[in-house]
Amino acid sequence: MEFKALVQQVLLTVEPPSLNDTASDWLRVERSLRAQLPDRPVAATLTALRDLGPALRQGDWQIVATVAEVGDVWRVVQIAPARFATYPIGLAVDLGTTTVVAELVNVVSGEVLGTRLAYNAQRDFGVDVTARMMHAEKPGGLLELSEAIRRSLNDLITSLCVEANVDADRIAAAVIAGNTIMGHLLLGLDPSSIRREPYVPAATTFPVMTSREIELNLSADTPIYLLPAASGYVGGDVTAGLLATQLADAELPSILIDIGTNGETVLGCREFLLACSGSAGSAFEGCGLEWGMAAQAGAIDRVWVADGRIAYRTVGNEAPRGICGSGLIETLGACLQAGIINRNGKVNLEAPSARRNNDGHPVVVIAPATETTVGRDLALRQGDIENLIRDKAALFAGSRILLANAALTFEDVAEILIAGNFGQSLDIDQAVRIGLLPDIPRERIRFIGNSSLAGARAALVSRGQWQRAQSIAASITCLELTAEPGYFEEYTAALFLPHTDLSLFPSSQSHQETGTILQGVI
Amino acid sequence: MEFKALVQQVLLTVEPPSLNDTASDWLRVERSLRAQLPDRPVAATLTALRDLGPALRQGDWQIVATVAEVGDVWRVVQIAPARFATYPIGLAVDLGTTTVVAELVNVVSGEVLGTRLAYNAQRDFGVDVTARMMHAEKPGGLLELSEAIRRSLNDLITSLCVEANVDADRIAAAVIAGNTIMGHLLLGLDPSSIRREPYVPAATTFPVMTSREIELNLSADTPIYLLPAASGYVGGDVTAGLLATQLADAELPSILIDIGTNGETVLGCREFLLACSGSAGSAFEGCGLEWGMAAQAGAIDRVWVADGRIAYRTVGNEAPRGICGSGLIETLGACLQAGIINRNGKVNLEAPSARRNNDGHPVVVIAPATETTVGRDLALRQGDIENLIRDKAALFAGSRILLANAALTFEDVAEILIAGNFGQSLDIDQAVRIGLLPDIPRERIRFIGNSSLAGARAALVSRGQWQRAQSIAASITCLELTAEPGYFEEYTAALFLPHTDLSLFPSSQSHQETGTILQGVI
Repeated sequence: MEFKALVQQVLLTVEPPSLNDTASDWLRVERSLRAQLPDRPVAATLTALRDLGPALRQGDWQIVATVAEVGDVWRVVQIAPARFATYPIGLAVDLGTTTVVAELVNVVSGEVLGTRLAYNAQRDFGVDVTARMMHAEKPGGLLELSEAIRRSLNDLITSLCVEANVDADRIAAAVIAGNTIMGHLLLGLDPSSIRREPYVPAATTFPVMTSREIELNLSADTPIYLLPAASGYVGGDVTAGLLATQLADAELPSILIDIGTNGETVLGCREFLLACSGSAGSAFEGCGLEWGMAAQAGAIDRVWVADGRIAYRTVGNEAPRGICGSGLIETLGACLQAGIINRNGKVNLEAPSARRNNDGHPVVVIAPATETTVGRDLALRQGDIENLIRDKAALFAGSRILLANAALTFEDVAEILIAGNFGQSLDIDQAVRIGLLPDIPRERIRFIGNSSLAGARAALVSRGQWQRAQSIAASITCLELTAEPGYFEEYTAALFLPHTDLSLFPSSQSHQETGTILQGVI
Repeated sequence: MEFKALVQQVLLTVEPPSLNDTASDWLRVERSLRAQLPDRPVAATLTALRDLGPALRQGDWQIVATVAEVGDVWRVVQIAPARFATYPIGLAVDLGTTTVVAELVNVVSGEVLGTRLAYNAQRDFGVDVTARMMHAEKPGGLLELSEAIRRSLNDLITSLCVEANVDADRIAAAVIAGNTIMGHLLLGLDPSSIRREPYVPAATTFPVMTSREIELNLSADTPIYLLPAASGYVGGDVTAGLLATQLADAELPSILIDIGTNGETVLGCREFLLACSGSAGSAFEGCGLEWGMAAQAGAIDRVWVADGRIAYRTVGNEAPRGICGSGLIETLGACLQAGIINRNGKVNLEAPSARRNNDGHPVVVIAPATETTVGRDLALRQGDIENLIRDKAALFAGSRILLANAALTFEDVAEILIAGNFGQSLDIDQAVRIGLLPDIPRERIRFIGNSSLAGARAALVSRGQWQRAQSIAASITCLELTAEPGYFEEYTAALFLPHTDLSLFPSSQSHQETGTILQGVI
């Protein structure tokens, strides 16, 4: 019997006690468990001990023990009479700055039983990690932030379990992938040293917690695994992305760009891993934009120009109420292509979709008020466009600096993997057109969806992947971009659409259209 | 540097981080700890991670880490700036059915910083373990009992800390010795199978808990060690007694009799350990007696007859308000000696201290109402005397059965050790006179006080003793007295003072008086 997942179920037939054999319930169970799991010691939890006696007797001395690998022991986290036992369920979580996504997984089959996304309730205390860290330094601020993220997570657990008709007590383990600051705030660790030179977090590896310790609405002894981080700004979500993509096991170098609230980029292969974080990308998650939103029902996720007019599609084909990341990228690309904005990102007020808003500022209207559920035009303001350009410039410059440090160019890269929680699909040509992605053959670019969530799931269903995460995180070299010579020049040069140096984007000069649409594949 | 106690302090000087060395606070501390504790891995707790950053910076990168041995790892339970650190404090607890005794200990020096006794708040739900187990089977009963014992323990912790002027957060570890049922109720484990044949507990060994898990008012990650039990009726308190007396390491067999609410007896040496429990002894703790009480201020702890009249001494020389165990034993002995009761325990109504009470039942007055704080005569009723005789008969019969099983007699025994929480000293001749103890040379009998508490303290100050406790508990063979042939005859024969078979008590015929007073020595 091979045990692959981080949690396992073991069927035990236990010899009933007699006056000649009065060993305790636990000693009997421990004996049977050791016989089936000889590789390491077995440890009880309070939950298991409490359920043991009734389960053995109700189950006629046949029980199923659910065990989790914690450090060097098998920890018994659930005990149930054999006849009532079902497959073990795990929880995978992407703990993002803007959104939290959670998923119920059958850890044996890998089947996803349900996925839900919610906004991080910490949004009330600041839009990005810097604002959150500043709030954490106020009296009571750290506690407020801890409680907010816990509330978000607990609400998600509740709604996921209702939706999938699963008792939350059945969840046998959770793997959480989050950036380092979210990890600190969830655990109540002071993140203040991350914000100040030399940007050192309290921890990058975390002991396996229990839900009792961090007050999650799961059975008290459910083990909670936090994926390890590489540094204060390259977190467990990046480690998760590397797990999901297997980038760190490949022979040839690839680039992973995670367009979350912080834009993290990793360049590497099995020989080396170089990473940076730009505090960029949040505009693509909709942060700071008037109509930005997550890729939920009613979000505009696809945008194009037909007959000179902007056209769009929404998630779930509902009436639009905002614009998600993929919609934002395609809006910029389509507007540039149609001349609605120019290479500086300035709105051409003579274009049919452009106008001045009430303040006199130029805007590009994507969906007129009559078509929306919000009763107002869904539009990008001139300032929104500039925010998006600054973020794409930071992301592009980050990749360039990583490549320079490895003495490589985009041509040497096997694949560029774009991760993000901002839509089901993305027109890669538009991402190249605006200079978010380099102008390389399109088949070498893949949009992989939420790789942080996928990595958390991978660790949940595979002990080997959980262990691999530890070695991956420990082997990442992190560059501090602001300290890198040449970064500011790279950034400034990228503040154009697609770039100041058009020789980097030969296809933008030919205006050829390939129309490649990439689906999230993880 | 040799580490002896279960918790240890390690002074760490940590290299501050720089832009060239941005390892997290925890990685730095882990590195330093491993260098000083190379024998096993080091694990963080949430408490340690939360305190780490501030402590390192306030302490100018000099901190003291308090680590506890938990399984095969050193668990970091406290972190403090070096300049604020003091010695580590431990808590030793005797978790008894009637009383709970707790002690603060400097685990480095072994010095006791304070000791306090309180009644177990579970008394409201029944006088002995059987009554408690029956209550646990009622709806909500287990929770009530768990909460009651936790409340008693938390009240004791609070008053101990106030008295010793110690912050409860400074307590770095607790070792608890209790009988198996008290252990189950503290952890919320269902004890119902202990009460029914084949008398099997949920567990006899317990994982190291945290105060968060069992809701003690200590720092959340303080490790709580429960001494292992041998069976449902031979608990961690007996294991503790064996640790304290080193009986299990001796060459020649000795007997340990713990006169608690359950009278447990162990016969053995390093070759073998035989134990039994008689559900006897509770009368000697004052249970079920009108004026029984613990050995607190105002308890009559010494009793003798002078000029035909009963004389007494109280704990703290205060006006009497009850009678504790040593007072009860001495009262029986002195009354038998002076002819106030006969060999059947019947009160001689012609004796000066005897009279009939309002119900017409005979009583022996120990302190007349005028001398007490309670405004009534402190007396033993005929029924109280019979309770005490039944308990001493059960204890004596238990020893006889153990000896018979080992093919030994009292003459073969190196020492008889009497443990109990019932007074500072005991007139051993009176205990022999009533047949509670056998008639062997008095220098082979020792009264050792509360050996359960002493054993908990021994494990706290010595990792070796904690480990020894595991092997001791595992090697005890428990006899079920009611299933032993000959037990009922032994018990019946002992229902006289001192015994039906007077040849077992030669000195009771000579009426010689040695007056040996034994002090509790642990």
